[in-house]
Amino acid sequence: MKAKISSLIRPLVRDLNPYVPGEQPKIKGLIKLNTNENPYPPSPRVLNAIKAGVDARLRLYPNPTAQALRERLAKLHRCKSENIIIGNGSDELLALAVRCFVEPANQGNASRMPNPNGKTDARTLVQYFTPSYSLYPVLAETHGARCNPVPLKSDFDFPSLSELRRNRKWNFSAALTFVTTPNAPSGRAYSLRQLDDLCRNQRGVVVLDEAYVDFAEKNAMRLALAHPHVLVARTFSKAYSLCFQRVGYFVGHAGLIGALDKIRDSYNVNGLGQIAALATLEDLPFYHANFKKIIAAREKLSEDLRHLGFQVLPSQTNFILARPPKFSAEEWLHKLRERKVLIRWFKYPEVRDYLRVTIGTPAETGALCKAVRQILDKSR
Amino acid sequence: MKAKISSLIRPLVRDLNPYVPGEQPKIKGLIKLNTNENPYPPSPRVLNAIKAGVDARLRLYPNPTAQALRERLAKLHRCKSENIIIGNGSDELLALAVRCFVEPANQGNASRMPNPNGKTDARTLVQYFTPSYSLYPVLAETHGARCNPVPLKSDFDFPSLSELRRNRKWNFSAALTFVTTPNAPSGRAYSLRQLDDLCRNQRGVVVLDEAYVDFAEKNAMRLALAHPHVLVARTFSKAYSLCFQRVGYFVGHAGLIGALDKIRDSYNVNGLGQIAALATLEDLPFYHANFKKIIAAREKLSEDLRHLGFQVLPSQTNFILARPPKFSAEEWLHKLRERKVLIRWFKYPEVRDYLRVTIGTPAETGALCKAVRQILDKSR
Repeated sequence: MKAKISSLIRPLVRDLNPYVPGEQPKIKGLIKLNTNENPYPPSPRVLNAIKAGVDARLRLYPNPTAQALRERLAKLHRCKSENIIIGNGSDELLALAVRCFVEPANQGNASRMPNPNGKTDARTLVQYFTPSYSLYPVLAETHGARCNPVPLKSDFDFPSLSELRRNRKWNFSAALTFVTTPNAPSGRAYSLRQLDDLCRNQRGVVVLDEAYVDFAEKNAMRLALAHPHVLVARTFSKAYSLCFQRVGYFVGHAGLIGALDKIRDSYNVNGLGQIAALATLEDLPFYHANFKKIIAAREKLSEDLRHLGFQVLPSQTNFILARPPKFSAEEWLHKLRERKVLIRWFKYPEVRDYLRVTIGTPAETGALCKAVRQILDKSR
Repeated sequence: MKAKISSLIRPLVRDLNPYVPGEQPKIKGLIKLNTNENPYPPSPRVLNAIKAGVDARLRLYPNPTAQALRERLAKLHRCKSENIIIGNGSDELLALAVRCFVEPANQGNASRMPNPNGKTDARTLVQYFTPSYSLYPVLAETHGARCNPVPLKSDFDFPSLSELRRNRKWNFSAALTFVTTPNAPSGRAYSLRQLDDLCRNQRGVVVLDEAYVDFAEKNAMRLALAHPHVLVARTFSKAYSLCFQRVGYFVGHAGLIGALDKIRDSYNVNGLGQIAALATLEDLPFYHANFKKIIAAREKLSEDLRHLGFQVLPSQTNFILARPPKFSAEEWLHKLRERKVLIRWFKYPEVRDYLRVTIGTPAETGALCKAVRQILDKSR
């Protein structure tokens, strides 16, 4: 019977290693600094707007394109609603981009055929720097596309264009290039000039994934509106404390947005999520004040950890990447967890020596530092 | 520039005709009988549970597998949580099923190759009866799969197995067969025996799409648990008045569910939707009372329309399909809309002579009958 079941499933799916999201454990008193959530709740006005939306209308379908939200975001970003698509979190849109712009390279078992000219077909290529958001290769593999991971420099900066040209691995014709900016998990920001140069030299679609940009000094939104092949991804999850409600969006050329729109589910964004996001945009000063607090906490935590012997990379996000002293990063993960502090550790080679720590409230980051001190003291 | 944009988009996507959902107009006083929503709001307990969930936790990611809901549904259907996957509406799961079980037939322009033995490759085939849910062909085409639409009989009943065998068009090896049961848009129910016979003879996956089954006398859930290749689709949208919140599910063999689970977005079901669905399952008698009211209104409306000269098909759903007198179905659509009654008309050949009317409250269906009488009187 087991053989029968597996024969019903596409070989591509059978062989997939799915994305593993960060843990969401329900342990009492746990300090959760592992999935880059905002430590502060949504604005009281947003909570009230959602509550006010909980009534008989739940029986009706939500607006299929989240039109009011598109129009409000168009105003914010000084573009048209046709330049915006709303997703069930930006993750949904990243997946749609792969399915919309990239050809699958194989059809099941039958046809892993080399392409006529013997080279990798750029139309089947999803390209990204490593390390960056670990979802990209999963999305590519799920679609049957080819991955082209290209290493960042050892300080997590971009290779220069001339380095990329010398490095035969980078493909300037890749159907889709994902750039996490500021980068995750390093926290490093890239300049508008660097991003613009990169975009100008790509012939396929480029998605600038700005999930963390509200914690940075600058953003690259203008590139989505200047270049027809560039999309900027944003999310309400992190900076706007709405992970629970799943709302993200892309900004870009109406031609690309229209193509994505064709292949999304008809009612992809839940109604209360639409209400929540709209209310958020009416109360931005509340969130800007939180960003300031988080940035201040980030700088303080970075300094405190440096004093404790950690090598902390400069961050423009709501998390830091830090190389710990004395024990391996994996050991730190377990030792901190024993003290009810949960941080993130990735076993990818480029970052396996680092810990990624989400910036919590001052009390939470204080508790982390205290736990670190205890661990270091105990080991003396 | 236009040429450039279109070259960035997969030819398959460029050529797609997307699904067109029923209108959700915001016209004051409009009686909306076009998208099969429940006329009654969710239970007050459900509304209270959602409101109670609107707090600081919105900043956190929801449970990635909607685990509590899976476990509660497993109890309801007497299976294990591994037999259940929750989706962002059942539409998301129908799309996942195509991507999980069906090979794309072509990769862009390059390879619309005949398959080696010259026959249609069953691995690339999405099969369904017509008329049924008009989303199925859209999902197949979006994936690059082949569609195999096979007509129902003129009374919308299944062809018998021997008829299907004689009809060379039906494919007993199709990778995926969708069956809307009870059928939409006809409202007709199929017997467990018919469905079981059909399932037993299919070698690929069969999805029994029971979106409307709560308004029927019987359901086929047992087939999902009896046959490893059968999945049953359910939704909280229609019967449970939660369209706005996007929650649906599949029940079936853990092997198929696990494969679907691999390719869904990590946090596909919003948190308040999970809370709403869980609270719904704690208050089922409230909904059962509504089902009775809707079924009674359906029978009354059917009789009233028959008296007015309509040919009304028997229905086991929360809508009816009716062939109107005097004017074409399309003319009725416009005439009723002028009187602020919105119903659904499909231009597909099998049903273009019919109107589909969602069962509203007695006041709403009364208003429909009144408008029908006025239209008929005026035409005398």
